[in-house]
Amino acid sequence: MPRFMDVHRGMSGITAEQLDNAHRADLAAEHAEGVHFEHAWADPESGTVFCLSEAPSAQAVRRAHERAGHSVDEIHSVPLSV
Amino acid sequence: MPRFMDVHRGMSGITAEQLDNAHRADLAAEHAEGVHFEHAWADPESGTVFCLSEAPSAQAVRRAHERAGHSVDEIHSVPLSV
Repeated sequence: MPRFMDVHRGMSGITAEQLDNAHRADLAAEHAEGVHFEHAWADPESGTVFCLSEAPSAQAVRRAHERAGHSVDEIHSVPLSV
Repeated sequence: MPRFMDVHRGMSGITAEQLDNAHRADLAAEHAEGVHFEHAWADPESGTVFCLSEAPSAQAVRRAHERAGHSVDEIHSVPLSV
């Protein structure tokens, strides 16, 4: 399954609890789109959140996030990793 | 040790071999700055590369990448992760 890194901006001051809740909402929404959100990392100072996922397509990643109530600014297919 | 996600842009068409070589150069340069580059993910189409690291500071991440010959466009402290 292809992997994706997506970027959310505009979440300045995000807390550990908010990140946890957002990830839980993603996990609840992912199945319908065949997506699995593996990890998320957040920078509260700049309000940037990075999410790594496995998914059939970038559109599926976007739909799953939107289903969970999260807009997403960038979605990158990342076929290469080390 | 704090964790960072950094973003490199302008690497359109990056190949698996080039990513591997870049990561090897980072690993060779990291020790001097007390950094450890854990993972990297690359999107050859947009030329975007994401690197996850442990480091004492964002400046140390920047210096280690520059020591390896890589400019870096964004460096985010990511104290929160799931």
